Amino acid sequence: MDISALNALSYEDFVNILGNVVEKCPIITAAVWSRRPFASLAVLEAAINDFIEALPESGKEGILRCHPDLAGRDLQSGTLTRESREEQARAGLDTLNSAEVSRMARLNEEYKERFGFPFVICARMSDKETILRQLSERLGNECAVERARGVEEVKKICHLRLQGLVLTDAHKL
Amino acid sequence: MDISALNALSYEDFVNILGNVVEKCPIITAAVWSRRPFASLAVLEAAINDFIEALPESGKEGILRCHPDLAGRDLQSGTLTRESREEQARAGLDTLNSAEVSRMARLNEEYKERFGFPFVICARMSDKETILRQLSERLGNECAVERARGVEEVKKICHLRLQGLVLTDAHKL
Repeated sequence: MDISALNALSYEDFVNILGNVVEKCPIITAAVWSRRPFASLAVLEAAINDFIEALPESGKEGILRCHPDLAGRDLQSGTLTRESREEQARAGLDTLNSAEVSRMARLNEEYKERFGFPFVICARMSDKETILRQLSERLGNECAVERARGVEEVKKICHLRLQGLVLTDAHKL
Repeated sequence: MDISALNALSYEDFVNILGNVVEKCPIITAAVWSRRPFASLAVLEAAINDFIEALPESGKEGILRCHPDLAGRDLQSGTLTRESREEQARAGLDTLNSAEVSRMARLNEEYKERFGFPFVICARMSDKETILRQLSERLGNECAVERARGVEEVKKICHLRLQGLVLTDAHKL
């Protein structure tokens, strides 16, 4: 899809196609539609990031809380969004052995207990060993540091989802 | 559920139970969890309303754009959220005759074309005649007036959804 096609979409089509670039937060995609036309995909991405940054801290925590646990209940029960399922699978999180599943579950619980939001990392840029190590290390951070770090990971995830949905070899934006 | 039970919920349970009090915007429920404990259900509702009011105008339009058309495609195809389905049914929108369906579709399209967001009204406080009349009348308003009006309707919908989810005869908050 080229940028003029993207700019020509009704808000309904825009949200249907791009509504999950930030996990379970179609309001963000729906909000930035107000700022079309976009000169490029990078400009659209910047509009999304600006919207996120302008939210109060509770709103940023709200975004994180809309994310599933990695290798958690939603993966086991098949209730992940399509995007999350593919990303977790690519990082090898759907083929953990039982010891790894237990360790991940324990660390996820500890993280959520400490911070009040889940551990978020861009799984597509990682693998299971790195994710387990990061989860363990990031547990030692301050809450404000982790909130900001989680939001940066949300932006990386959004970047890759946007690229995957909009770019084709024929139509680079 | 009494208010102490509500305040004791993890963010995951809180969002699972209350995540759709603002249609398809679980980020809002997830954000206000940061402000617990709530002294009453009214205080929780005020926190949601404050969060909405603090959003930029694009964010308010984003909320409206997450709402389905009344008596529209999602109703016909069975893809409404449970809450919206019940509310539209209660207003009689699932038993329109074909002339009424056509009229509603035409007015909805005209409204979306003019404002860039859908017509939102608290269906549970209304009926099909009133909805059709309001839709027709509100088409004549300025965009800023309609955006503010739509947000007020979102708050009414949220109020009734909260009451329905949290209150029982045995446990008034």
